[in-house]
Amino acid sequence: MIVVMKTGSTAEQIEEVSTRLAEEGFKIHLSQGVEKTIMGAIGDRSRLEALDLEALPFVEKVVPILAPYKLVSREFHPANSIIRIGDQEIGGNKVHVMAGPCAVESREQILETAHAVREAGATFLRGGAFKPRTSPYSFQGLEEEGLRYLAEAREKTGLLVITEVIDARDVSLVADYADVLQIGARNMQNFILLKEAAKCGKPVLLKRGPSATLEEWMMAAEYLMDGGNYQVMFCERGIRTFESYTRNTLDLSMVPALHTLSHLPVIIDPSHGTGKWHLVPPMAKAALAAGADGLIVEVHPHPEKAVSDGKQSLTPEKFKVMMDDLARLTSVLDRELGEVSKRAE
Amino acid sequence: MIVVMKTGSTAEQIEEVSTRLAEEGFKIHLSQGVEKTIMGAIGDRSRLEALDLEALPFVEKVVPILAPYKLVSREFHPANSIIRIGDQEIGGNKVHVMAGPCAVESREQILETAHAVREAGATFLRGGAFKPRTSPYSFQGLEEEGLRYLAEAREKTGLLVITEVIDARDVSLVADYADVLQIGARNMQNFILLKEAAKCGKPVLLKRGPSATLEEWMMAAEYLMDGGNYQVMFCERGIRTFESYTRNTLDLSMVPALHTLSHLPVIIDPSHGTGKWHLVPPMAKAALAAGADGLIVEVHPHPEKAVSDGKQSLTPEKFKVMMDDLARLTSVLDRELGEVSKRAE
Amino acid sequence: MIVVMKTGSTAEQIEEVSTRLAEEGFKIHLSQGVEKTIMGAIGDRSRLEALDLEALPFVEKVVPILAPYKLVSREFHPANSIIRIGDQEIGGNKVHVMAGPCAVESREQILETAHAVREAGATFLRGGAFKPRTSPYSFQGLEEEGLRYLAEAREKTGLLVITEVIDARDVSLVADYADVLQIGARNMQNFILLKEAAKCGKPVLLKRGPSATLEEWMMAAEYLMDGGNYQVMFCERGIRTFESYTRNTLDLSMVPALHTLSHLPVIIDPSHGTGKWHLVPPMAKAALAAGADGLIVEVHPHPEKAVSDGKQSLTPEKFKVMMDDLARLTSVLDRELGEVSKRAE
Amino acid sequence: MIVVMKTGSTAEQIEEVSTRLAEEGFKIHLSQGVEKTIMGAIGDRSRLEALDLEALPFVEKVVPILAPYKLVSREFHPANSIIRIGDQEIGGNKVHVMAGPCAVESREQILETAHAVREAGATFLRGGAFKPRTSPYSFQGLEEEGLRYLAEAREKTGLLVITEVIDARDVSLVADYADVLQIGARNMQNFILLKEAAKCGKPVLLKRGPSATLEEWMMAAEYLMDGGNYQVMFCERGIRTFESYTRNTLDLSMVPALHTLSHLPVIIDPSHGTGKWHLVPPMAKAALAAGADGLIVEVHPHPEKAVSDGKQSLTPEKFKVMMDDLARLTSVLDRELGEVSKRAE
Repeated sequence: MIVVMKTGSTAEQIEEVSTRLAEEGFKIHLSQGVEKTIMGAIGDRSRLEALDLEALPFVEKVVPILAPYKLVSREFHPANSIIRIGDQEIGGNKVHVMAGPCAVESREQILETAHAVREAGATFLRGGAFKPRTSPYSFQGLEEEGLRYLAEAREKTGLLVITEVIDARDVSLVADYADVLQIGARNMQNFILLKEAAKCGKPVLLKRGPSATLEEWMMAAEYLMDGGNYQVMFCERGIRTFESYTRNTLDLSMVPALHTLSHLPVIIDPSHGTGKWHLVPPMAKAALAAGADGLIVEVHPHPEKAVSDGKQSLTPEKFKVMMDDLARLTSVLDRELGEVSKRAE
Repeated sequence: MIVVMKTGSTAEQIEEVSTRLAEEGFKIHLSQGVEKTIMGAIGDRSRLEALDLEALPFVEKVVPILAPYKLVSREFHPANSIIRIGDQEIGGNKVHVMAGPCAVESREQILETAHAVREAGATFLRGGAFKPRTSPYSFQGLEEEGLRYLAEAREKTGLLVITEVIDARDVSLVADYADVLQIGARNMQNFILLKEAAKCGKPVLLKRGPSATLEEWMMAAEYLMDGGNYQVMFCERGIRTFESYTRNTLDLSMVPALHTLSHLPVIIDPSHGTGKWHLVPPMAKAALAAGADGLIVEVHPHPEKAVSDGKQSLTPEKFKVMMDDLARLTSVLDRELGEVSKRAE
Repeated sequence: MIVVMKTGSTAEQIEEVSTRLAEEGFKIHLSQGVEKTIMGAIGDRSRLEALDLEALPFVEKVVPILAPYKLVSREFHPANSIIRIGDQEIGGNKVHVMAGPCAVESREQILETAHAVREAGATFLRGGAFKPRTSPYSFQGLEEEGLRYLAEAREKTGLLVITEVIDARDVSLVADYADVLQIGARNMQNFILLKEAAKCGKPVLLKRGPSATLEEWMMAAEYLMDGGNYQVMFCERGIRTFESYTRNTLDLSMVPALHTLSHLPVIIDPSHGTGKWHLVPPMAKAALAAGADGLIVEVHPHPEKAVSDGKQSLTPEKFKVMMDDLARLTSVLDRELGEVSKRAE
Repeated sequence: MIVVMKTGSTAEQIEEVSTRLAEEGFKIHLSQGVEKTIMGAIGDRSRLEALDLEALPFVEKVVPILAPYKLVSREFHPANSIIRIGDQEIGGNKVHVMAGPCAVESREQILETAHAVREAGATFLRGGAFKPRTSPYSFQGLEEEGLRYLAEAREKTGLLVITEVIDARDVSLVADYADVLQIGARNMQNFILLKEAAKCGKPVLLKRGPSATLEEWMMAAEYLMDGGNYQVMFCERGIRTFESYTRNTLDLSMVPALHTLSHLPVIIDPSHGTGKWHLVPPMAKAALAAGADGLIVEVHPHPEKAVSDGKQSLTPEKFKVMMDDLARLTSVLDRELGEVSKRAE
């Protein structure tokens, strides 16, 4: 940590800061420039809690040097983390595609979609049974009934199931049915939910908040790991920007950035990331080229009848075309698409 | 709702859209321009749920005309809503100042602060017993012990108590101790928490999400009102922008904007809104001049020892100076500062 | 400047950085922590130009400590700068209101408006003769003819004239007619225009770019002062945010922030800052309460016929009401509204 | 255009709006709902200039239906535009890579870089002779001397030259030396510069403003085309977001978005788009996978000695590795990398 004193600060004031730092166990290096005095303080970042030095009128600013996250960092775990889910592995050589509707609407819809995406090459089925909706007047999900349909689809297709949990009280219920729990973008900093999901025993896909920074996102993952869940995947789904042609701005640079700073896999959601189905295939290809470990894509057999997100959903036909393109692409990226394991069939 | 068809759309396609709209009970007006066909559809906005017309390849865009909120709108309740809390009223002629530390740290700290802010003219005591923290390694609050200290401070000073709730499972516990429940910025779209707070029987102060639009914020309040709680106050606490000198950008235009669109009172938080104590008094004055119904301000007897937000906390002395300025200011704004009622003393 | 080395950097690498810094005249303090090595480098910030240390693979980051601006800083000129324009002073006790239409549309329009705003208490007439327009198909201004009308209005009313310049080649032409040159928001980082305006001999009002940070804005002012023009005023006119109810988000915290960091006056534009005429009076009052040195406000005799910005223009009647409120307000702020000097009449 | 009247507007008010619209040649369709009256107005969007209906107190909002751009739109020119520069074509099957340093620093530097990037497969040499710099104290470019070095490098290598122009007065000078003129991000809405560049007779690469929307960007291109220059290329170089790990957020979704809405080619700048050299290769690959027509990349023989942007510059060695990866990638995208033509050698 660096403490920058205000111009003209006195010897007593510098002494006061030094004393406080020393009391918290920091070792101090003093640098006196012509204009500014700066102090390098070496010690435990978490002890900074007990010090709010910027509240002192003669301190100009405090610049932290160490990153606030530990367990999610590449330094903590230099090799890539491989998340094992059923017979599948995420974070290794295979790229997995998770596909399905935004919301589970009916048994027929979810089974029809599951078969279609399985056929085209997906390995996971997505679909929301609990929906966080901006309006209280919107469809809020089929809840446990929806979870049952997802489980039935898994049984019939061999696809693994990923679905969102939005209430800390439902974590164990959702974990009973799902293979992967999704924490949605608006819940990225719902620390209560994170703490509960940390204890669920299932892998968690953590979406980036719509305006979250990379550091905030990593800190949210730190909540999961600090709570005991090491099976965490990041999912970039677009951030809010001034652009309105796209629903969000899909920030693909997070793929190489996270691969640099963290050991955890990175999944890309080009459906929420663009909000327009015709932008999904090019951005899905771009995601793989950037090094993504997987995709999560909305597919609906009848997008114009979807209760939500129809305009960003691919039809099964368009999804199939995209999957073929992705297979071609992985060949020059030294990766390959995951496949539903024989045992599962 | 306006439906804009893509250039070159056929009579069949226009017919298809018309039919779907008619099926959902919409009355249709067709306008055929040289380049575009547009359809005005009049009906119940909530039925739009069942239609995702933008998923149709020949629909260019759908423009909603009616606002999605109802109960929070000025049209629903043309007069200002007055929120009654103990002997106080918020939303009327009196301007209330809520003051206290970011977090309840100890019995001594909260009692000392309560007396000081009471003396200077505050009518509500603020202080967090449950803290949503970016890092799992940060102080997470004294929890129920903190609530007890707040209640004791209320008893000793006559101040009313406002405190944050972050877990749906704690809503009734917090409502037992507090006079007003605060929903924090990062929980503005925690719909589970909103639904629970709607049933708590206590007024709710709803902070704006750091990147929320006015409409999203009003929809969050709609969750509370739709759930049965009509005692809702908006609280602007700054939004995330590119500016880093301030912690957030305090958007005071929300005061007249909300007063135009809604009947609910508007409180301003210049402490989180700026992140720097020396910016708090000028922005507090600006808030009142813009028409705010109240302020919520961080005051700490020893900011440099605060476990959080020390740099944006006023000392009791500086708070007193600010309150005197605010009293002078209200006189030319045809308002007056609230006072702790005699009975409470 | 602080240089943070990557974890695991070798003695040779530390030596390499030290040597480079020493070559550029920096004095170095080395701090070796358990995890990181950091170097404090004291010297001339402008010499950093010659060093791009972050390009070195073993350097994690470089944190500048000194502000990049000099002449605009409060440290360079501790007292408030007073800008003298004709008989008026901006930056002192008097608050000035600049008013007029967005664009000069005709001789009649500008004269009618000038008389009306003079009557209500404005001291400056605003109006654009050169208009930067998003579309090439929009009205681009009356150009020199517009400047002549402004000059005529000055003669007839005693108001001083402020108008925008958008082309470096027109700076001296505009300076011939205007009392204050305005650099518009989209030209804040048009360094060519800034360099030319620095030489014009007239005061400059520098609007903040729609997404500019405080530091970038101050650096733009630094271009003007470094070029020899010390008569600079900042003008906050709202920044782009996600909020769409308002055209921009008026960032009033810039008033106390600039008064802390700089000696130059700060003017607020609540018209562009909100984009809606009914939000202008409350935000104008808020601006003065926050400590603004002046306002620039759009007034049009017939807003619904304005060629631009009609929806954010006050009528002369509404402007008069606002001015009366502002006069009342200044009395409790220990300031007063400027007046057109007798000699000018 | 849709005009939405405020709730409770009278027949006279509706009549007043209708009359104004009719006067400007609009044909009107009236739709009266239970809550709102809306009017569809069909006519020439440019006549909206003369009407500022939102300034009328009884008009709630005006929603434009037609896009404001014409010449840049896909509807105006359904086939892809191919920009011919020397022997090269941009916008067709071949993907071109433009490479070189941020700034031209010396004859040696530019020649060394030119040979290296030519060797690795680039077809254009980039390098700034005029630099727009945030600080007046930073290196501002070698100006005409720099242009001469670029021209010499073209002669020696067969590379075409792209370089930035920042002053309207320098357009013809730069056009004398360069094959493509670059309009930088901060000048995207410098309409004076756009009008001059429209007349220069050379193709223009138009960078997106750091906070510009797609529509604003297309309108800037419309200035160029309306001024007579049809040889326009878009260049996405990242937008400003809250993320600070990357210098900007590279918005690759603009590639398919622009290919949908416009006929003009799209170039991606992953160097400014990320600000970190190690993110450049993955994002360059992602750009091609998304369908980009070309790349512009910073390469410097000694990044740590670069006068600007060293940390985002690739060394020639790393650039070569990236080019090999890109060549592999294009093969599965049914495209190929451009090559310096034999005649040029």
